[in-house]
Amino acid sequence: MTSRRVLTGSKQVSLEVIKRLSSYLRDLKTLENNGVTVVSSGSLAELLGISSVQFRKDLSYFGPFGKKGVGYNVCTLTAKLTELLGAGDCMGFALAGAGKLGSAIIQYSSLQRFNIKIMAAFDSDRRKIGKKIDGLVVADAKDMETTVRTMGLKIGVICVPAKAAQQVAERMASAGIIAVLNFAPTEIKILKKVHVSNVDICVEIEALSYFVRQSAT
Amino acid sequence: MTSRRVLTGSKQVSLEVIKRLSSYLRDLKTLENNGVTVVSSGSLAELLGISSVQFRKDLSYFGPFGKKGVGYNVCTLTAKLTELLGAGDCMGFALAGAGKLGSAIIQYSSLQRFNIKIMAAFDSDRRKIGKKIDGLVVADAKDMETTVRTMGLKIGVICVPAKAAQQVAERMASAGIIAVLNFAPTEIKILKKVHVSNVDICVEIEALSYFVRQSAT
Repeated sequence: MTSRRVLTGSKQVSLEVIKRLSSYLRDLKTLENNGVTVVSSGSLAELLGISSVQFRKDLSYFGPFGKKGVGYNVCTLTAKLTELLGAGDCMGFALAGAGKLGSAIIQYSSLQRFNIKIMAAFDSDRRKIGKKIDGLVVADAKDMETTVRTMGLKIGVICVPAKAAQQVAERMASAGIIAVLNFAPTEIKILKKVHVSNVDICVEIEALSYFVRQSAT
Repeated sequence: MTSRRVLTGSKQVSLEVIKRLSSYLRDLKTLENNGVTVVSSGSLAELLGISSVQFRKDLSYFGPFGKKGVGYNVCTLTAKLTELLGAGDCMGFALAGAGKLGSAIIQYSSLQRFNIKIMAAFDSDRRKIGKKIDGLVVADAKDMETTVRTMGLKIGVICVPAKAAQQVAERMASAGIIAVLNFAPTEIKILKKVHVSNVDICVEIEALSYFVRQSAT
């Protein structure tokens, strides 16, 4: 909900732009795997489901890409975006709440493609502690701070119930986490120097249902 | 990725605004359950993790709410937002892909709070067809169009692998679905008269990892 911006050179870039760049990179990799070498801004925009103006604007934050009338070299653009997003390095994260959604995320195979790796998962439920999910043993939530600090983890994913989310976020922040992806159906109050992204599945569906009702009237 | 706007009275409202209203409603319900009757715009904004300017702006699309200096009556505001979002009516959806993430969504207990109900789930994997998840039997994907049409479902949730997502979205659209929530790690190309919302867990985490790297430099 909060506006998260970061300085890149002299320009401020929002989390929304970074998320779009990340999805551009994902789709460029698919093109690369399919043997496409050069692509026009128009074709790329169509593939990405956005306007070519939006695409060029997003890239423009980070300097010149492509040549007018020639299009983009897929391999070069992929390499540049990979470097820009730091997507070549492996990034580990900690997950709190190994319930159904948390377990699904632990087992989410697409993460590997993004060089993202779950390093530790925690739960306070005795029935879940010690359980092995996709090779990862769920640890006791009381050890979260120590483990996060020892492993130097900076990203936390929250899949705990709504009422526990704020406290878990604060504990993560105190242990050195500086970016949180929150799946709990509640808002996490802003913590100093911590970026919070919220994904609330109910809110997503409810917003769509609003559009459905509007379409029917 | 696409800009989705809808006319409300004479003003255009984006999907982002509707999603924020939906999360305001979620948090107002919590306040109401906690016995809070009146709340100031400032306190509400703090709870919601946004600025009070943003909050007032979002509400302003839909006419006057609250009185200056008096604050908001929680019960009245909850009722108005419920009516506005049509959140009092039950809204059913169809889900394609009953893998780990799809199963987690089927079992997602918070949906009930939002009057959202999964009405049908489909998979093309023989090992999943016929499986009972939280009382719902996973149906054969080949019957999706018929079921969606018969039940008059308008919202589809896609949890299939990336390569199958576009085709599933097109089949849903042909059966009458007009709003899609896509969890597959790929972009769904714009379909006529269909709203698409994308939630890519990898993109979310990759965007956060960009901010982590920026913070480290």
